[in-house]
Amino acid sequence: SKFAYVRDFELPDNLLLGTFILLRIDGHSFPQILIASHRFTENHGFAKPNDIHIILAFGQSDEYSFLFRKTTMMYNRREAKITSIVCSLFTSSYIMKWHTYFPTTTPLRYPPCFDARIVLYPGIREVRDYFSWRQTDAHINNLYNTAFWALVNKGGKSTRAAHETLRGTASSQKHEMLYSQFNINYNALTPAQPVLSNGTVADAGKVSLVQDVPRTNSYGSLSSVPVPLHSLVGPEGDVVSPKLREKHKTGQESTRIALLHCDIIGDEFWDLRPYLWVEDC
Amino acid sequence: SKFAYVRDFELPDNLLLGTFILLRIDGHSFPQILIASHRFTENHGFAKPNDIHIILAFGQSDEYSFLFRKTTMMYNRREAKITSIVCSLFTSSYIMKWHTYFPTTTPLRYPPCFDARIVLYPGIREVRDYFSWRQTDAHINNLYNTAFWALVNKGGKSTRAAHETLRGTASSQKHEMLYSQFNINYNALTPAQPVLSNGTVADAGKVSLVQDVPRTNSYGSLSSVPVPLHSLVGPEGDVVSPKLREKHKTGQESTRIALLHCDIIGDEFWDLRPYLWVEDC
Amino acid sequence: SKFAYVRDFELPDNLLLGTFILLRIDGHSFPQILIASHRFTENHGFAKPNDIHIILAFGQSDEYSFLFRKTTMMYNRREAKITSIVCSLFTSSYIMKWHTYFPTTTPLRYPPCFDARIVLYPGIREVRDYFSWRQTDAHINNLYNTAFWALVNKGGKSTRAAHETLRGTASSQKHEMLYSQFNINYNALTPAQPVLSNGTVADAGKVSLVQDVPRTNSYGSLSSVPVPLHSLVGPEGDVVSPKLREKHKTGQESTRIALLHCDIIGDEFWDLRPYLWVEDC
Amino acid sequence: SKFAYVRDFELPDNLLLGTFILLRIDGHSFPQILIASHRFTENHGFAKPNDIHIILAFGQSDEYSFLFRKTTMMYNRREAKITSIVCSLFTSSYIMKWHTYFPTTTPLRYPPCFDARIVLYPGIREVRDYFSWRQTDAHINNLYNTAFWALVNKGGKSTRAAHETLRGTASSQKHEMLYSQFNINYNALTPAQPVLSNGTVADAGKVSLVQDVPRTNSYGSLSSVPVPLHSLVGPEGDVVSPKLREKHKTGQESTRIALLHCDIIGDEFWDLRPYLWVEDC
Ligand SMILES: Nc1nc2c(ncn2[C@H]2C[C@H](O)[C@@H](COP(=O)(O)OP(=O)(O)OP(=O)(O)O)O2)c(=O)[nH]1
Ligand SMILES: Nc1nc2c(ncn2[C@H]2C[C@H](O)[C@@H](COP(=O)(O)OP(=O)(O)OP(=O)(O)O)O2)c(=O)[nH]1
Ligand SMILES: Nc1nc2c(ncn2[C@H]2C[C@H](O)[C@@H](COP(=O)(O)OP(=O)(O)OP(=O)(O)O)O2)c(=O)[nH]1
Ligand SMILES: Nc1nc2c(ncn2[C@H]2C[C@H](O)[C@@H](COP(=O)(O)OP(=O)(O)OP(=O)(O)O)O2)c(=O)[nH]1
Ligand SMILES: O=P(O)(O)OP(=O)(O)OP(=O)(O)O
Ligand SMILES: O=P(O)(O)OP(=O)(O)OP(=O)(O)O
Ligand SMILES: O=P(O)(O)OP(=O)(O)OP(=O)(O)O
Ligand SMILES: O=P(O)(O)OP(=O)(O)OP(=O)(O)O
Ligand SMILES: [Mg+2]
Ligand SMILES: [Mg+2]
Ligand SMILES: [Mg+2]
Ligand SMILES: [Mg+2]
Ligand SMILES: [Mg+2]
Ligand SMILES: [Mg+2]
Ligand SMILES: [Mg+2]
Ligand SMILES: [Mg+2]
Ligand SMILES: [Mg+2]
Ligand SMILES: [Mg+2]
Ligand SMILES: [Mg+2]
Ligand SMILES: [Mg+2]
Repeated sequence: SKFAYVRDFELPDNLLLGTFILLRIDGHSFPQILIASHRFTENHGFAKPNDIHIILAFGQSDEYSFLFRKTTMMYNRREAKITSIVCSLFTSSYIMKWHTYFPTTTPLRYPPCFDARIVLYPGIREVRDYFSWRQTDAHINNLYNTAFWALVNKGGKSTRAAHETLRGTASSQKHEMLYSQFNINYNALTPAQPVLSNGTVADAGKVSLVQDVPRTNSYGSLSSVPVPLHSLVGPEGDVVSPKLREKHKTGQESTRIALLHCDIIGDEFWDLRPYLWVEDC
Repeated sequence: SKFAYVRDFELPDNLLLGTFILLRIDGHSFPQILIASHRFTENHGFAKPNDIHIILAFGQSDEYSFLFRKTTMMYNRREAKITSIVCSLFTSSYIMKWHTYFPTTTPLRYPPCFDARIVLYPGIREVRDYFSWRQTDAHINNLYNTAFWALVNKGGKSTRAAHETLRGTASSQKHEMLYSQFNINYNALTPAQPVLSNGTVADAGKVSLVQDVPRTNSYGSLSSVPVPLHSLVGPEGDVVSPKLREKHKTGQESTRIALLHCDIIGDEFWDLRPYLWVEDC
Repeated sequence: SKFAYVRDFELPDNLLLGTFILLRIDGHSFPQILIASHRFTENHGFAKPNDIHIILAFGQSDEYSFLFRKTTMMYNRREAKITSIVCSLFTSSYIMKWHTYFPTTTPLRYPPCFDARIVLYPGIREVRDYFSWRQTDAHINNLYNTAFWALVNKGGKSTRAAHETLRGTASSQKHEMLYSQFNINYNALTPAQPVLSNGTVADAGKVSLVQDVPRTNSYGSLSSVPVPLHSLVGPEGDVVSPKLREKHKTGQESTRIALLHCDIIGDEFWDLRPYLWVEDC
Repeated sequence: SKFAYVRDFELPDNLLLGTFILLRIDGHSFPQILIASHRFTENHGFAKPNDIHIILAFGQSDEYSFLFRKTTMMYNRREAKITSIVCSLFTSSYIMKWHTYFPTTTPLRYPPCFDARIVLYPGIREVRDYFSWRQTDAHINNLYNTAFWALVNKGGKSTRAAHETLRGTASSQKHEMLYSQFNINYNALTPAQPVLSNGTVADAGKVSLVQDVPRTNSYGSLSSVPVPLHSLVGPEGDVVSPKLREKHKTGQESTRIALLHCDIIGDEFWDLRPYLWVEDC
């Protein structure tokens, strides 16, 4: 898509050849972990209201993106520190919440893991294009998956044959195939399953570093795979009002995170959230 | 200690100021995770006998160090890829094995997490000094903790007062205090608890990327904290013989990892393992 | 000064310890150099009207700053390429123009050299603050030098004693000293020697990569040290009009570079040059 | 060639997109330059006997390679500092010595310039392979040029036609062509012009940062292009003896640099110079 240029901002980080690579993992604030009776919210640095680093999160497929404040000095902006700690905490939360969000699914049989990287963007334009790029990817995946499972479940094809049939087809051809072969009007379908088509965006003016897993799903057997991100939503389930935000700042109120499956490519989403770009948010 | 110079090989990785930090986490080989019936060993790339990346591991306190082959091309030596995936897999394994290794301990109440970094060393000398540096740290910690808990458990001091008493004391002063006040001969004590004093080193000619957690302990209430690394040991529990190594290479035998609590500062440990420095190991 | 924070954008670039450093210098577009009869403007890539990389330059003391277009893809933005080539070309021009600008000065007795570095700034605010920082430095240097030479030439002090006298004095103390001891009103003095106080800014809508040396001077024996940057000025010696810029773009006119010794801390200079921030300039 | 793998040690250094690039050049030890009566050797930091950074240099075509001591802490190993200063000093020396080495050649009409980069190599093997790679390049260039000028000067071809004829030909084909068409036995020719075939290596146990230009030539009109590197040779013109080296260390003797056009791919050159790899050389 036209947004894919944001990928060009990624810089290579290949390590010098011919040298030993020594990787040290160090427990993060480890004594806290061991004092098991302490409450996470009391102990964990990320949760301090005046220490908001992540201002937006977006999940689709098996990937999750987190936008940090431009002026964050988290870990003095040390790349490996941020990358590894966020990735590790995410992994950790993902596992510990697995049963809560997938109670009917098989328990985890072996340890899942994630890769992580940081890319820097100098301006709002590139940040918005980044999220557009990822949501466009969700659209593409969802259309593909819809067509794929129609071929398999309704068309009786093997998964291999279904992939073969779809290889190289344009978006319009998939729409056409869904309609002519299976009488599915894709455009009428998607509003009913926005999480699949749009992914999930988490916004609370602030997003605390997620004990709960921002997990979205746009794949296969839908009913059996709930969306873990829902747990991040506050009682009212909606975008935190400026008033509420104020309370958070003064510590009177804990954070509410809204989970949305809306379009984030158009202007509307962003026009409603000018606070995202306020430096001292 | 005299080994601490290896720290100077760490290079800063602070990120450019005034730019947005965008962190993307991506599920690693995710379809494998979802096909829960598949066995990890069949699915997971790290486990291939001809694809050995990590050749030595050392754990002490809440930290674990992994030495990669000099010529490894794992993830094309991309720093963020290696750092984040190893850190994430380690985190994941740590949680999933928690109950196995700490059956009598309180279950995890909130997600633990780890930071990770890569440091490059150009030669064997620096690699050895690195491990000496970390084992020296284990010695220092163990002596401190022994003195600390003596003051608390036997001397009746509060933890605060115990820290106060020990602040700034030299190694010899701690030995002296243990002996005169509590009749403890520290040097006679440590051989009986090598894991505390020396940490744990895992070596199998190859170390597969640890489903099991290399966890060592040199702190407090010892009896209640078993050493998870033991699970990595094969049936015979000893260092893999060259013959066995050959079998691994030809795929006839699965990997055995030896867990040792021996000295790694002197030459003996290394003289016994010339295979560590063989490029095509 | 309050602008000095821009320094924090500099990132460390220390090289890994314990490795050999191999530096290769390669003649740039070398065949061109050897075909001595060819005119530089015909041969040199930088001079192409549609290939404007540097949009502003500022010189003071022995330092020169060059601002590149945000979107420049010069040498694919490879840091070492840009740094070394610009630094080398600058050095080269500096020497070859030495006699032209300093005809009465001793010829160069040994090779001068410059260091160079690149710092990235994500926004206009930081860029302006960078230039303010450097001009403030020129102010500070000029006041110091004025006081220093007054003490030496009029006060009969040795250079050592003059430095001693000035060490640690505030700006106001230097003003006061100049007035009370030497009857010099510093503020009345500076408008007559703007190059000393303000440095020199070179702007032409475009600044071709300077055959002529942007050399400014705010030191010592003024009359004997002319300002080489003057050679960069076109026949009319003034800021290039938008109309002229247009002609440059269409290739009808060669570039004129204006040399100014004006204030660049206030808004006026920048308000007159909106074209600096136009991406496709 | 089989040595070209050393190129893979180069790491990319592309700068973040969408950010302004600010390049500052700063006169290096500038007051020294201005005190024109001072002698370079007295003033210049590189020349101190106990401050030897570069231990070997090799030049061929328009490129020059400098090997630094593994343990050098020159400019605290800051990449941009080293790259730019060495490149700038080299450029500077190149121009100022132009007339001395090319007295009959046209004076420089416009400023030459060089790019520079640093590549790190962790071991001696890679360092040797690096130099082998560059000398192999000299061989290839010389054979090409010999064939090229034979076609032009003896075969009456235009330069364009000569390039056309040679495009894609193997080494053996060029040998054959030289022999059959022009009766030139290339292998008999090269010993008489070693500088062309082998390039020039400068070694003195130490190589001071070259006021004199290590310039080699393996191109065209030979007689008119002398080899500037000769000026680096001491009175005796040979490799500095260990005894002499000792004197240099104690400051009793100034440095002599030997210029050689010998083979550096085989072992002999290196076996004679064990001091290159002695850390405290
Ligand atoms: N009770 C107990 N404490 C341990 C054990 N292993 C490590 N610790 C504690 C001792 C230290 O306070 C701490 C490790 O020191 P660190 O320098 O890594 O500090 P911490 O993890 O708190 O902060 P960090 O995020 O790494 O900067 O964990 C254990 O097995 N039992
Ligand atoms: N069945 C199912 N599959 C999913 C779901 N979410 C993601 N996936 C699958 C679809 C894709 O095959 C895969 C994600 O694509 P990736 O490009 O991230 O590939 P993968 O994770 O295999 O490899 P990687 O280690 O990221 O290079 O995970 C889900 O909720 N259900
Ligand atoms: N006539 C003549 N040509 C030479 C001499 N030394 C080098 N050259 C030429 C041969 C090649 O065309 C060129 C060096 O090749 P490069 O790959 O460095 O190309 P060039 O410097 O043009 O471009 P670059 O900026 O380095 O990418 O210089 C010499 O002594 N005499
Ligand atoms: N006499 C005289 N001195 C000047 C002139 N321009 C600059 N300078 C002197 C003033 C300072 O001592 C020096 C510039 O200060 P720097 O901080 O750049 O120091 P320097 O170049 O000595 O060392 P560096 O290699 O840059 O760390 O050059 C000039 O036009 N005339
Ligand atoms: O975390 P510390 O204090 O034990 O020491 P470190 O790991 O060297 O410091 P950092 O984690 O800040 O790199
Ligand atoms: O950087 P990589 O190799 O993980 O590549 P990617 O851009 O994440 O693409 P993919 O979806 O193939 O992992
Ligand atoms: O300049 P070239 O083409 O001889 O080859 P290179 O120096 O390896 O290429 P670059 O200068 O682009 O790094
Ligand atoms: O980066 P350095 O060491 O050159 O330091 P600087 O900021 O240029 O300061 P100085 O004027 O001392 O060179
Ligand atoms: Mg730490
Ligand atoms: Mg820790
Ligand atoms: Mg994915
Ligand atoms: Mg990926
Ligand atoms: Mg994935
Ligand atoms: Mg620790
Ligand atoms: Mg090149
Ligand atoms: Mg060249
Ligand atoms: Mg200066
Ligand atoms: Mg400086
Ligand atoms: Mg200077
Ligand atoms: Mg070249």
